[in-house]
Amino acid sequence: MSAPVPKQPPEPGAARLAGEGDPRPRGRIGAWFIGARGSVATTATVGSLALGAGLGARTGCVTELPEISGAGLPGIGDIVIGGHDVSAVPLTKRAEELAASGVVPAHLPAALTDALAAVDARLRPGVRALDEEPQRATAARVEADLRAFRDEHRLDRVVVVDLTSTEPPAPQTPALSDPDALERALDAGESPLPGSSLYAYAALRAGCPLVAFTPSPSVRPPALTGLAERMGLPWAGSDAKTGETLVKTALAPLFATRALQVRSWASYNLLGGGDGATLASADNAASKITTKGRGLESILGHPVDGPLHIDYAPDLGDWKTAWDHISFEGFLGVRMSLQFTWAGCDSALAAPLVLDLVRLMARAHETGATGPVGAFGFFFKDPAGSEEHRLAAQWEELTAWCARAAAGGGA
Amino acid sequence: MSAPVPKQPPEPGAARLAGEGDPRPRGRIGAWFIGARGSVATTATVGSLALGAGLGARTGCVTELPEISGAGLPGIGDIVIGGHDVSAVPLTKRAEELAASGVVPAHLPAALTDALAAVDARLRPGVRALDEEPQRATAARVEADLRAFRDEHRLDRVVVVDLTSTEPPAPQTPALSDPDALERALDAGESPLPGSSLYAYAALRAGCPLVAFTPSPSVRPPALTGLAERMGLPWAGSDAKTGETLVKTALAPLFATRALQVRSWASYNLLGGGDGATLASADNAASKITTKGRGLESILGHPVDGPLHIDYAPDLGDWKTAWDHISFEGFLGVRMSLQFTWAGCDSALAAPLVLDLVRLMARAHETGATGPVGAFGFFFKDPAGSEEHRLAAQWEELTAWCARAAAGGGA
Amino acid sequence: MSAPVPKQPPEPGAARLAGEGDPRPRGRIGAWFIGARGSVATTATVGSLALGAGLGARTGCVTELPEISGAGLPGIGDIVIGGHDVSAVPLTKRAEELAASGVVPAHLPAALTDALAAVDARLRPGVRALDEEPQRATAARVEADLRAFRDEHRLDRVVVVDLTSTEPPAPQTPALSDPDALERALDAGESPLPGSSLYAYAALRAGCPLVAFTPSPSVRPPALTGLAERMGLPWAGSDAKTGETLVKTALAPLFATRALQVRSWASYNLLGGGDGATLASADNAASKITTKGRGLESILGHPVDGPLHIDYAPDLGDWKTAWDHISFEGFLGVRMSLQFTWAGCDSALAAPLVLDLVRLMARAHETGATGPVGAFGFFFKDPAGSEEHRLAAQWEELTAWCARAAAGGGA
Amino acid sequence: MSAPVPKQPPEPGAARLAGEGDPRPRGRIGAWFIGARGSVATTATVGSLALGAGLGARTGCVTELPEISGAGLPGIGDIVIGGHDVSAVPLTKRAEELAASGVVPAHLPAALTDALAAVDARLRPGVRALDEEPQRATAARVEADLRAFRDEHRLDRVVVVDLTSTEPPAPQTPALSDPDALERALDAGESPLPGSSLYAYAALRAGCPLVAFTPSPSVRPPALTGLAERMGLPWAGSDAKTGETLVKTALAPLFATRALQVRSWASYNLLGGGDGATLASADNAASKITTKGRGLESILGHPVDGPLHIDYAPDLGDWKTAWDHISFEGFLGVRMSLQFTWAGCDSALAAPLVLDLVRLMARAHETGATGPVGAFGFFFKDPAGSEEHRLAAQWEELTAWCARAAAGGGA
Ligand SMILES: NC(=O)c1ccc[n+]([C@@H]2O[C@H](COP(=O)([O-])OP(=O)(O)OC[C@H]3O[C@@H](n4cnc5c(N)ncnc54)[C@H](O)[C@@H]3O)[C@@H](O)[C@H]2O)c1
Ligand SMILES: NC(=O)c1ccc[n+]([C@@H]2O[C@H](COP(=O)([O-])OP(=O)(O)OC[C@H]3O[C@@H](n4cnc5c(N)ncnc54)[C@H](O)[C@@H]3O)[C@@H](O)[C@H]2O)c1
Ligand SMILES: NC(=O)c1ccc[n+]([C@@H]2O[C@H](COP(=O)([O-])OP(=O)(O)OC[C@H]3O[C@@H](n4cnc5c(N)ncnc54)[C@H](O)[C@@H]3O)[C@@H](O)[C@H]2O)c1
Ligand SMILES: NC(=O)c1ccc[n+]([C@@H]2O[C@H](COP(=O)([O-])OP(=O)(O)OC[C@H]3O[C@@H](n4cnc5c(N)ncnc54)[C@H](O)[C@@H]3O)[C@@H](O)[C@H]2O)c1
Ligand code: NA
Ligand code: NA
Repeated sequence: MSAPVPKQPPEPGAARLAGEGDPRPRGRIGAWFIGARGSVATTATVGSLALGAGLGARTGCVTELPEISGAGLPGIGDIVIGGHDVSAVPLTKRAEELAASGVVPAHLPAALTDALAAVDARLRPGVRALDEEPQRATAARVEADLRAFRDEHRLDRVVVVDLTSTEPPAPQTPALSDPDALERALDAGESPLPGSSLYAYAALRAGCPLVAFTPSPSVRPPALTGLAERMGLPWAGSDAKTGETLVKTALAPLFATRALQVRSWASYNLLGGGDGATLASADNAASKITTKGRGLESILGHPVDGPLHIDYAPDLGDWKTAWDHISFEGFLGVRMSLQFTWAGCDSALAAPLVLDLVRLMARAHETGATGPVGAFGFFFKDPAGSEEHRLAAQWEELTAWCARAAAGGGA
Repeated sequence: MSAPVPKQPPEPGAARLAGEGDPRPRGRIGAWFIGARGSVATTATVGSLALGAGLGARTGCVTELPEISGAGLPGIGDIVIGGHDVSAVPLTKRAEELAASGVVPAHLPAALTDALAAVDARLRPGVRALDEEPQRATAARVEADLRAFRDEHRLDRVVVVDLTSTEPPAPQTPALSDPDALERALDAGESPLPGSSLYAYAALRAGCPLVAFTPSPSVRPPALTGLAERMGLPWAGSDAKTGETLVKTALAPLFATRALQVRSWASYNLLGGGDGATLASADNAASKITTKGRGLESILGHPVDGPLHIDYAPDLGDWKTAWDHISFEGFLGVRMSLQFTWAGCDSALAAPLVLDLVRLMARAHETGATGPVGAFGFFFKDPAGSEEHRLAAQWEELTAWCARAAAGGGA
Repeated sequence: MSAPVPKQPPEPGAARLAGEGDPRPRGRIGAWFIGARGSVATTATVGSLALGAGLGARTGCVTELPEISGAGLPGIGDIVIGGHDVSAVPLTKRAEELAASGVVPAHLPAALTDALAAVDARLRPGVRALDEEPQRATAARVEADLRAFRDEHRLDRVVVVDLTSTEPPAPQTPALSDPDALERALDAGESPLPGSSLYAYAALRAGCPLVAFTPSPSVRPPALTGLAERMGLPWAGSDAKTGETLVKTALAPLFATRALQVRSWASYNLLGGGDGATLASADNAASKITTKGRGLESILGHPVDGPLHIDYAPDLGDWKTAWDHISFEGFLGVRMSLQFTWAGCDSALAAPLVLDLVRLMARAHETGATGPVGAFGFFFKDPAGSEEHRLAAQWEELTAWCARAAAGGGA
Repeated sequence: MSAPVPKQPPEPGAARLAGEGDPRPRGRIGAWFIGARGSVATTATVGSLALGAGLGARTGCVTELPEISGAGLPGIGDIVIGGHDVSAVPLTKRAEELAASGVVPAHLPAALTDALAAVDARLRPGVRALDEEPQRATAARVEADLRAFRDEHRLDRVVVVDLTSTEPPAPQTPALSDPDALERALDAGESPLPGSSLYAYAALRAGCPLVAFTPSPSVRPPALTGLAERMGLPWAGSDAKTGETLVKTALAPLFATRALQVRSWASYNLLGGGDGATLASADNAASKITTKGRGLESILGHPVDGPLHIDYAPDLGDWKTAWDHISFEGFLGVRMSLQFTWAGCDSALAAPLVLDLVRLMARAHETGATGPVGAFGFFFKDPAGSEEHRLAAQWEELTAWCARAAAGGGA
């Protein structure tokens, strides 16, 4: 027997808007990280605890900028963190590893031992895509974990963020094509969901807004987007824009608006860490390469030649180095070039965006937003609900949304 | 005796707007290049003639983009070119030199021999800042050249573009502080004007809209801006944004909107050509370095550390190579960097903008715009009439202006 | 019936040394290019003709340096050029294409029309690996072409240079394992030779010294090296070192001798042109990637992590851009990096080396050298007859060889 | 009354060679750092103590390579360190600062507290160039410090290394032109010596071999080199080659031996730290820029165009980023380029060389070497006693010296 899909948002009292002049939201906020022991999630957790304890500056937090912070967002330090992971390595150990490789300051793990242990106690075992148990049961367990977290901490809303290892693209199957087909398949004992989508399913069923931070399928198959619609829940994604693509979508409009013809754009990425190891598999990298490629064609208005590689360089750890070479043509056909080298710390770039998105999604949920929040495209390589890839234009959309939210209005 | 400063625009009939649905301007347009035998001017001339003759693509011409081209602009091929220069090297020779160094296609100079000779016949000897003749007389001669050009070719308007070698910054003198003081000084037989400002003075007196394409003083001392105001003439400037600064103002907003703290931004420029030779003098480079530095602080909201050098590398010819190194800080203080290398052909980047600005200024003049046209800041390192340096935001301002012009409205 | 393999060099009179004080070799020299209509071969041909006609400087010609030029080498302009190609595009057309893309000066093709036509008349149709004709017959035809060229032009020696498109690595088959096995297979009507090795076989049979300029198998399978030994012929190879690998073998010793630990070395190559198109096939690129990888491990003394890509970027034409990122570790484990971008014109880098190797191989042949000339490793990514990859050490070996040759001695 | 200049080396028993088969030197070795509290000196001290205690790998130590280590060198851990500095900041504090900025591992300062304190107790107050005291007296005090150190620790020899802040170039004065003139000036109560040369004078007088690790004048004025000769003492210098120049002298021979014409070579250096602050003064940078420029012309055989800047970027700390752009010409005049970015930790690159030079100079002293040891040019931008700048050739000279020393012979 299938669990009935509720037609109404399960948290009726939540969508109350803070009155004008009082944009700070009522209520307590939870963040639930799928992949909570990964580099990005751990950095976000360390950062949230550190900022809450006044142990660091808010550099890198978009929601701290004046154009955004007025939108009635929950405080960074007020977020209660929990999550799933298939790994059991303690958060303190992960934090120490990140400190050793320079991702977080050396002194923080020790200073936050207790706070990290408290989060650790809230983490639940994750589920693997290949588990034998039918997904109906697995999903119920995940959903129960989420509900228990919300209840136990008396949270007004819980934002779920997918921070697991990147999965291959999802096959297009009938079961993923609409919510009813999905329910029928699950009822039939089938397990049609990619891992990330299983979590998304459970999150939506639990009434939680969702952030697809990775390029994995997650909420994007029609069965899940349809479910979000039915549940009246907002979501945002996919694949956070933190490095080479970020630079790309800042630079490409230069060529477009100066009428310079991009002839080829080569993109090479070197990265280590867990993410690098996962992407060393061509299958998993496929998702990433697809989302990375999307922006350029959209901004330039034509397909663009040029290789795009993601290579695993274990010795670089969380540090990513990307080199892009752009060959372009100007007046009367003259050939010119621009090249850039980006040397960024991936987890440190991603972590504050995780917290930003938790705060923004909580506010979106509060204002009653439903479906993909296109105005959050600023954060993503493959922005759901928007065709806009130009970074500056996305910034305008984001700040406009925030201005409306500050004024007490919905998205 | 001083020539009276007319209080009214001298071309009363010109400011007629083309009606809606008929944005193509009535009238014939002239472009008058100060420094007409220089690399940029020659490339613009070759390009204009080539495009007029259907001998090349319009790559690099901003005014050919759909968001701009509907603004009722004169055709590129319809522009009649004349100018001043202190050099007497024939345009065909300059064109051949540019072809030899790859700035314009090898076959063009031969294909355009006659057309280039026709322009050559319209060029007049320029004036040197150190000439002994009092500037009152020199200015009258320059003004007469401009009037003669307009009359002879029955032009409805002539846009003057300063394309001479960069001059040092202008001293702040009383004579440059307002139009009346300037007139008094000229009457007294003094010669208070920097070379570029002498041309600007004559251009305004002749009723011509003006583009300050270089970082030289030109129209920017208050005596000249005041004169433009009195004459009801529009102008735009200063210092075309074609290379490293262009990239800078596309990239800097990335850091600002992602809340990343720029710690230092080092900028190194290598260039040859006549421009490189001029800028090898520290005095002349001072103007350029000042205008180049302006954008960053404005965009990031704080002063930014880091060297800025312009070095002369004769072997590079018209090819500029710039390397920028940006050191920045992210979440919890992590240090990261971005570096880029720009290898551009300066004259090929500048020339289409010269033609763009001629077309846009002609339209601005036609719509009756007065004073600095801030909406043209997209083209400049030091945008007059605007505080906006972010390339994408400047693009929005430019397209908004064009939309208004397309609708038949003023700027 | 098998053609008998001659046990003696077929040109007994050739190995006469010029006496001391008279190192200029007696005799006329021919160069036979396999792939004579390719970019490298055409550039070498244009260059040889241009230098012979006094139409250019000898930049890039190693054999013009004082340490080399005294070795009794034939003059560049004295080389008679012929060759094979499967393409029929006239050399003048290829020369014009190269001029259009800036590989050779724009004025040269016209200035050399007659001289190029003369070479064109000496080119013979090449053979394709997939031809149905048994290789015994094909080889005989190729050999006959070579002998005819030598006879017709009364050449004292002909150096054959493989300049065809890169082939995949050769399978290890019994027929390629020794000269006798090869003869038996050919007698049996089999066609066991890769295309490049078929040419090598014919060249050796014709008594010609050989240069394996590409990474293709050519003379390197044991059946062919054995044949060279029996014929008493010298050869050199493989895969000319012209770009990224050149820089690599100049830089890697820095790390080795400063005791800096290279942690990863990433190598990315972007190139267009015919060579780029060929290498876009993973199969063909395999040869190149293998030879490119060889030097680093040898110099550093341990395997080195890091991706190596060769990507086809048609818009770059003959221009190759390579980016290398070297991550290394110093005192007490500190991590540092070096990165470089090489922007070279591949054919212009390769062509003078082709002429250098023709001159040096002619001299090696004259002095009676047999087998791989390890002292020519300076020119190659995969130096035959030598384990030395360090560029500076290879230079010492080359100049020592030349000093011996100058003194009238053998190699 | 002048102190008599001894004509004989003051340590007659020291120049005993270890017998063959027993190259490990008898005797105890001291290292005396002028500028002992600076970044380089502190890193060298921390490193020496750490390696002595088995707390780190010997990466970056040239003297640990097999080609060098057999030369009969003292052990790294056996070196007793002392020194002068005008700063009084405790070594442990300096070590912690270096750890905080990632120059030495975070855990080392704590692990070495006692050992660092022991070195600290051996440091003596330095002298400032502007001190009022006549240099005769100051020099005597410095000399006494050195003798006391040697006596107290029963050292067989003490190598003095100049690691102070870079001074401006020395004026050519009569007093600096020969040893006798210098003695007369000092007798006359004059103070003709630059600070670094005052230390060099005292060191030589104390019978100590000397390393000029900086570009400061130190031992190089003729009065001092003459004194070294009279004292029979070896010395080495100047200005350790650790970054951009290191890469330059590895790369430049590529162009020379491939007959490629370097058209311009631009060199930009960004660095922070104490060294960066000092070099921000144009006067002090003059020394550095002179020594940096030397190698290129020597290797390429002609003067080379192109800017060379050293810029202070405080935010980079001990991390130096250098960008070089090399424009060169190949066959038939084709223009190409190579650029590289070096991101190195200056003190971590320099420190192991300090220890290397202490070990090598101790051995040179033991073998009775006198005057500049040209074979140590491998370590220097401005190699004294040698005209060789090519890194690979310097390596050959160094290893040849070591082979002789291993065989028990002198330099
Ligand atoms: N760092 C960035 O800048 C950035 C940007 C965009 C997207 N991403 C994406 O974020 C994700 C996380 O990156 P990371 O660097 O933290 O990777 P990571 O490998 O360090 O962490 C992934 C975590 O997910 C866990 N996990 C894997 N499968 C799981 C499952 N089925 N259930 C629960 N947990 C599971 C792993 O155990 C691990 O702890 C990746 O997909 C990455 O592509 C990162
Ligand atoms: N190329 C670019 O990308 C770019 C961008 C922004 C600004 N600019 C500016 O444009 C200007 C022109 O650049 P260019 O590369 O053509 O330089 P150029 O040296 O080739 O040309 C300058 C021309 O001005 C002429 N000239 C000098 N003084 C004169 C005078 N008093 N009267 C009349 N003519 C005079 C010279 O004879 C020369 O023909 C420079 O000031 C440059 O800084 C160029
Ligand atoms: N340019 C460099 O710097 C460089 C360096 C090392 C090696 N190489 C090698 O040199 C070779 C030539 O390079 P290119 O840029 O001139 O390539 P290209 O594609 O322009 O030329 C190859 C030529 O070989 C001909 N060819 C192909 N198969 C043949 C056959 N079976 N018989 C006769 N001719 C045949 C083609 O028709 C073509 O004319 C390539 O293998 C390349 O990898 C080049
Ligand atoms: N780091 C490298 O890679 C490298 C390479 C070549 C040369 N050098 C040279 O080595 C020197 C040291 O560099 P650093 O980074 O350690 O600089 P630093 O500024 O950290 O240290 C210099 C030290 O010298 C001391 N000092 C200054 N004047 C003195 C005096 N008169 N007597 C005694 N002590 C004095 C200072 O107090 C300071 O402790 C510099 O001259 C630098 O140019 C460094
Ligand atoms: Na402005
Ligand atoms: Na020297």
